[in-house]
Amino acid sequence: MASTRNPEIRSDIVFNKSVIFSTARARRPSDFKSTSATFNRGSSNSSCPFCIGREHECAPEILRVPRATSDWKIRVIENLYPALRRDIEFRSRELDSVPEAGVLSGFGFHDVVIETPTHDVCLSDLSAEGVGGVLIAFRERVLQLLSNEAIQYVQIFKNHGASAGASMSHSHSQIMGLPVVPPTVTTRLQNMKERYEKTGKCGVCEIKPGELLIDESSHFYSMVPFAACFPFEIWIIPRNHSSHFHELDSEKAVDLGGLLKLMLRKLSQQFNDPPFNFMVHTSPFQAKPSHMPHSHWFLQIVPQFFGIGGFEMGSGCYINPVFPEEAAKLLREVDVS
Amino acid sequence: MASTRNPEIRSDIVFNKSVIFSTARARRPSDFKSTSATFNRGSSNSSCPFCIGREHECAPEILRVPRATSDWKIRVIENLYPALRRDIEFRSRELDSVPEAGVLSGFGFHDVVIETPTHDVCLSDLSAEGVGGVLIAFRERVLQLLSNEAIQYVQIFKNHGASAGASMSHSHSQIMGLPVVPPTVTTRLQNMKERYEKTGKCGVCEIKPGELLIDESSHFYSMVPFAACFPFEIWIIPRNHSSHFHELDSEKAVDLGGLLKLMLRKLSQQFNDPPFNFMVHTSPFQAKPSHMPHSHWFLQIVPQFFGIGGFEMGSGCYINPVFPEEAAKLLREVDVS
Ligand SMILES: Nc1ncnc2c1ncn2[C@@H]1O[C@H](COP(=O)(O)OP(=O)(O)O[C@H]2O[C@H](CO)[C@@H](O)[C@H](O)[C@H]2O)[C@@H](O)[C@H]1O
Ligand SMILES: Nc1ncnc2c1ncn2[C@@H]1O[C@H](COP(=O)(O)OP(=O)(O)O[C@H]2O[C@H](CO)[C@@H](O)[C@H](O)[C@H]2O)[C@@H](O)[C@H]1O
Repeated sequence: MASTRNPEIRSDIVFNKSVIFSTARARRPSDFKSTSATFNRGSSNSSCPFCIGREHECAPEILRVPRATSDWKIRVIENLYPALRRDIEFRSRELDSVPEAGVLSGFGFHDVVIETPTHDVCLSDLSAEGVGGVLIAFRERVLQLLSNEAIQYVQIFKNHGASAGASMSHSHSQIMGLPVVPPTVTTRLQNMKERYEKTGKCGVCEIKPGELLIDESSHFYSMVPFAACFPFEIWIIPRNHSSHFHELDSEKAVDLGGLLKLMLRKLSQQFNDPPFNFMVHTSPFQAKPSHMPHSHWFLQIVPQFFGIGGFEMGSGCYINPVFPEEAAKLLREVDVS
Repeated sequence: MASTRNPEIRSDIVFNKSVIFSTARARRPSDFKSTSATFNRGSSNSSCPFCIGREHECAPEILRVPRATSDWKIRVIENLYPALRRDIEFRSRELDSVPEAGVLSGFGFHDVVIETPTHDVCLSDLSAEGVGGVLIAFRERVLQLLSNEAIQYVQIFKNHGASAGASMSHSHSQIMGLPVVPPTVTTRLQNMKERYEKTGKCGVCEIKPGELLIDESSHFYSMVPFAACFPFEIWIIPRNHSSHFHELDSEKAVDLGGLLKLMLRKLSQQFNDPPFNFMVHTSPFQAKPSHMPHSHWFLQIVPQFFGIGGFEMGSGCYINPVFPEEAAKLLREVDVS
């Protein structure tokens, strides 16, 4: 990659983050020992509660695929150590120490999706249909949560590898049903709404990926966002406007499953199974799909090569040593055949 | 800590972040090997460019304390791998791939503050006067940057330990002069301005720390913020309203130096020298101090015990397993005498 290119500051239209692209940063030395947190595949198979046959060691099951069989492929279960509790009342109170600072009771749902019965299989090992099945399980659970009036937003996410925050190595993702619309979502919707009011168009529909394109499927395309916060960050975007992830039908789920699998395989092959996160960015529940011409759901994949530092924590700006055009070119060319 | 306390969702008045407090999360098991990135004190002394006598291996010097002596205590130097460049023009252009997305040239300043000539000394090993001297060096450099019309905000921060992002182990911090006001600052100022317009008072002046108080000095106090994103996060706040860090005078610098040293020693003793970041949250340059009755600078310290995951990246909400009242009580009681 051209290390002489001058740095640039780009601002992101969706999340309104500022990102500094600087190739000089890629050449920094370090006098710390490598801290790569290796993913001990299989190491704890014998005691893993997510493995088939150990269902009794898990918190209660919500749904399984296929239904009513001991030979399941996917299970959605309650998180045994939930951040939010489904069994308490939703209410608010004032905090004494800070005038007007609000406190809500921690009502909400926190589920785990076990993506495979087998300990050593990871998401990208599944077929396109297999990954599509996981996406459909997400949708089924979102539709259940939709019927709860107190839930306003659902955050679907995956942590893979210890440096991406995972505490369990068996392939899984998580679904949290929140009684509030979280800050990132509020900001994103506000940005997209302002843009819509100005242009009459959805800002995400208007993206022309050009040299930022990685791959395409029938209903989706993948690209490096023009102001990627992290090197080799990938967005998978539905071609046609859709505000809510749970609008995904079975055909599109398999199509998306294939593209998601391809992106994960490319990252894994190119960077030797790096830790990563993925996040589904959807729209809040209270909004009817037809009312959200400005909000377009997408899936974000972030490989984790190094942690952030005080600059990012303090300013909310990111420093990315890899220009998006160069990341996209590299990812386009990875051959996983 | 009471593990039966129900979870709570608190929202922060300053940054407008939502934080879920859940003691259940503290009990999660992990099947990954420990990933603690040990800080190899002294291990690379012999090749450290920040050590006294190796000044020629560093990028150019900006200032040293005391001035014009080879027996220096503090040096401010250019970063050899700068994210922003001081030698390019500041200008903007449009990006083809995304209509209206802006790109600025990466003009700006990126400096390193070497806090001690000695490799094995860390910031909290210095005396209160010594730490105060580092704060005064920050101020001197900020005052220099103030004279550059293109600089709008200065982010001062420190990374300590590899898991807090540090690539160099010799005690140092960084100063970045930015040609834009970064997103976190814009949000913070907007929140504080709205509050000021409603109440006629500065929201930070109005904080009554109560059971969240940790320690106090003549001009500052330290507390755990009521919606701390991270366990044992600490804010050090000037008692009297002040919008800009660079208003700090020499007497207050020593006073702050003593309290900062005390907080870092408490963290180090209680948690065995954990990685941490600190960030100075000040006000943009263009605003005259007298025009900012709503913006109150402070210093934030964040010890890094574990990384964040997809939930935080996706939603901007944090999950904190330690309630602020309990963190403050523990930190109040750490005996560093
Ligand atoms: N027997 C069992 N039955 C049911 N559930 C079980 C279980 N044993 C463990 N679990 C749950 O399984 C989940 C596994 O999740 P991950 O490995 O993706 O990350 P975790 O949530 O631990 O934290 C990461 O993700 C969160 C959210 O992003 C961050 O807050 C955090 O810092 C980061 O480490 C845990 O939440 C755990 O509580
Ligand atoms: N001989 C020399 N002369 C002058 N300067 C020298 C030098 N040798 C090294 N440097 C500079 O010294 C600095 C040391 O900084 P830190 O150890 O605090 O973290 P770093 O900036 O590497 O990255 C961390 O902080 C940044 C900002 O938060 C994050 O983007 C990043 O992910 C995280 O790892 C580096 O910026 C490096 O460029």
